Amino acid sequence: MSGPAGATPHASSRAAVLDVIRAAGTISRVGLVKATGFTGATISTVVRRLIDDGLVLESGRAESTGGKRRVLLQLNQSSRFAVGVHLDHAGITYVLTNLGGSVVARMSRAGVGTDDPPVIMERMATEVDALIDGAGVDRSRILGLGLVAPGPLNQISGMRVSPPTMRHWEDYPLASGLETATRLPVVLDNDATAAALGEHWSGDVGGTSTFAAIYMGTGIGAGLVVNGITYRGASGNAGEIGHICLDVNGPACWCGARGCTEMLAGPGAVVSAARADATLARSAGLADAPERPRWLADFAAITRAALRGDARAKQLLESSARHLAVAARTLANVMDLEQLVLTGPSLAIAGSIYLPVVQDELDRAFFSRATHSITVRLSRSAATAPAIGAAALVLQSELVPLREGLRLPDNLGDAEPTGQPTSR
Amino acid sequence: MSGPAGATPHASSRAAVLDVIRAAGTISRVGLVKATGFTGATISTVVRRLIDDGLVLESGRAESTGGKRRVLLQLNQSSRFAVGVHLDHAGITYVLTNLGGSVVARMSRAGVGTDDPPVIMERMATEVDALIDGAGVDRSRILGLGLVAPGPLNQISGMRVSPPTMRHWEDYPLASGLETATRLPVVLDNDATAAALGEHWSGDVGGTSTFAAIYMGTGIGAGLVVNGITYRGASGNAGEIGHICLDVNGPACWCGARGCTEMLAGPGAVVSAARADATLARSAGLADAPERPRWLADFAAITRAALRGDARAKQLLESSARHLAVAARTLANVMDLEQLVLTGPSLAIAGSIYLPVVQDELDRAFFSRATHSITVRLSRSAATAPAIGAAALVLQSELVPLREGLRLPDNLGDAEPTGQPTSR
Repeated sequence: MSGPAGATPHASSRAAVLDVIRAAGTISRVGLVKATGFTGATISTVVRRLIDDGLVLESGRAESTGGKRRVLLQLNQSSRFAVGVHLDHAGITYVLTNLGGSVVARMSRAGVGTDDPPVIMERMATEVDALIDGAGVDRSRILGLGLVAPGPLNQISGMRVSPPTMRHWEDYPLASGLETATRLPVVLDNDATAAALGEHWSGDVGGTSTFAAIYMGTGIGAGLVVNGITYRGASGNAGEIGHICLDVNGPACWCGARGCTEMLAGPGAVVSAARADATLARSAGLADAPERPRWLADFAAITRAALRGDARAKQLLESSARHLAVAARTLANVMDLEQLVLTGPSLAIAGSIYLPVVQDELDRAFFSRATHSITVRLSRSAATAPAIGAAALVLQSELVPLREGLRLPDNLGDAEPTGQPTSR
Repeated sequence: MSGPAGATPHASSRAAVLDVIRAAGTISRVGLVKATGFTGATISTVVRRLIDDGLVLESGRAESTGGKRRVLLQLNQSSRFAVGVHLDHAGITYVLTNLGGSVVARMSRAGVGTDDPPVIMERMATEVDALIDGAGVDRSRILGLGLVAPGPLNQISGMRVSPPTMRHWEDYPLASGLETATRLPVVLDNDATAAALGEHWSGDVGGTSTFAAIYMGTGIGAGLVVNGITYRGASGNAGEIGHICLDVNGPACWCGARGCTEMLAGPGAVVSAARADATLARSAGLADAPERPRWLADFAAITRAALRGDARAKQLLESSARHLAVAARTLANVMDLEQLVLTGPSLAIAGSIYLPVVQDELDRAFFSRATHSITVRLSRSAATAPAIGAAALVLQSELVPLREGLRLPDNLGDAEPTGQPTSR
């Protein structure tokens, strides 16, 4: 029995209605009243304005159930678009989605490597232009750009306490930098959070709208979705399970603590251990110590060896899986989850090894297992989930307010007001 | 940037409005529109019905700020009441609160001990009668009874997988049992969750309405409050940090896992270790092995020894505190917290030892510490927080729906309808 739902100071009825229509596909005004709890008068007003603004269409009537046949509403999918960008050491993924979150264009490009942030921003702006132009979409219909990167993030100063591979990004003002370069309003968020939202929007999570997505790329994190809304915590840094302690006496971590999940189970730890084992390194075909760490490629090589039957590779990955499983159980005990999705490039590669180990740990030892079980699934869109989630963040806020003090060039003044906050 | 707030299927505008008025003390209708996001028409309607039902009063006018002076609304505190009951092995705490959550009567009684559940239910019903009669409150104004106990709980079958001291309660239908005995509608919840809500309602948490309360009584648990609403998880069993793993190779726990926080840090573990140390047992005045475990009393004795300067006692408690601190950091990393409250009878006793250890761990190693710090505080109402929270659960739902199939005796038919669900 929870407290009064909906008593949130800045509830946006417009964004709420759009989200319900999106999830339903088609729905009547009466259906909207039931789903949102808003009054008929509110729904009527909000829907009329959405239709006037071209975001929603009336499309046919529902089957008669005896009474008046109700007019069905649906999104005008191509009325608005959003760009989603997933920034990681290993690669940059771009997607362009329509108002409903369907991907209309996607692109993968090289990761940030060692170039300076301002150089990367210019490169990214060019790549965003190519994405939009290639899809033939009118730039004035683009609501904004969602940018997601590994945490912890600060909304103003970008990355704080960055992973070792992205040390030179620490404190670079990511969001305003990209906003200046692309001339699109930018929202910044954590990659694991966005991955969870992307899983939710791509409809892969099934009926439940409360779940966690464990994201393993170069590092490990989790995104939390509660009633269809991302749970972000005080500063957008919720779900940092890569840095919970699985062993109070464990190895020191770059984050300042010890025994962290990432040190015991992360792709970096797996690759280090493989490289330290000459037999395994040879059998997995790991090249001599490369100039720049290539964790994902090496992790893939070790996984292939394990799937081929290499016992040492199997043992390494299963040990990683057992640690990740304990972290998953911790997450499940804290959040009382019913569903868990495994996502991210490392789990896209090695999911068949990790999934049964995680499911078993939860079946055996999840604290509330006598009350309910937890379903663990592999993502079907692991590579693009963060980028899709990034676009979804833009769509959910529908009009992304510009950062204070930032002005867009005047020639955008004629286009539809995509960057101006509106009062609701 | 979170998704559309308020898009919850069964949002109760009436309960939301009551909660905002309660938290504000006094507020105008315009203030309610801003705080809830509801339309003026909705607020107008809801408030009129609340005034007609006698729950809300108009009380004077706000200071003029130039425009029309606005009428202020406030709760009619003594129009409704709620009973809160905290059930634990060590004791049963009863409170009676008014509509605003203020305690008007309280009572502590012996714990459940080894008596059979039906016997305890009858005893509790008598004690609830004494509480209500002693306060001189009209029973027809009592909205319901909140009953909280250690988790994990199942709403129908009560306790599943119970702690060793309450094994005979496993699967006893707590809520319907007490409903039958007291003839009041009952809501059941987890003690740590209720403690967090009680901390929030007693106004001790300060400005923020997102925080966690770590509750240490006989066991360890946490209650999570997000935007003033308890986060309960899929089955009301969120926050079970007593059973997260701090050591993958640690000791086996009664819950089926190993290395659990409760096994490494809980009062039971502290007392067992003290008893195994003959010197300490003597110096702390621990009696020979008692017939029934008296963890709380023994824990208090060990704490007194530590505060007197006994080095062995100090070492035990500081080790417990270090483990609890790591569990707190895990909770903070998962939820991205800004505030943590330490509550429950064991922390009420030993808080001065635990607080600095927990604060230090978070300052040093909380993952997002470069983005924000976390404030750790001791509760000022640790003994009664779960019972107050239990009453708050009733007040938040305002009218507690009766369990299906359960009928109250006919002689309550004449009183105000406290047990009938109303549509919203």
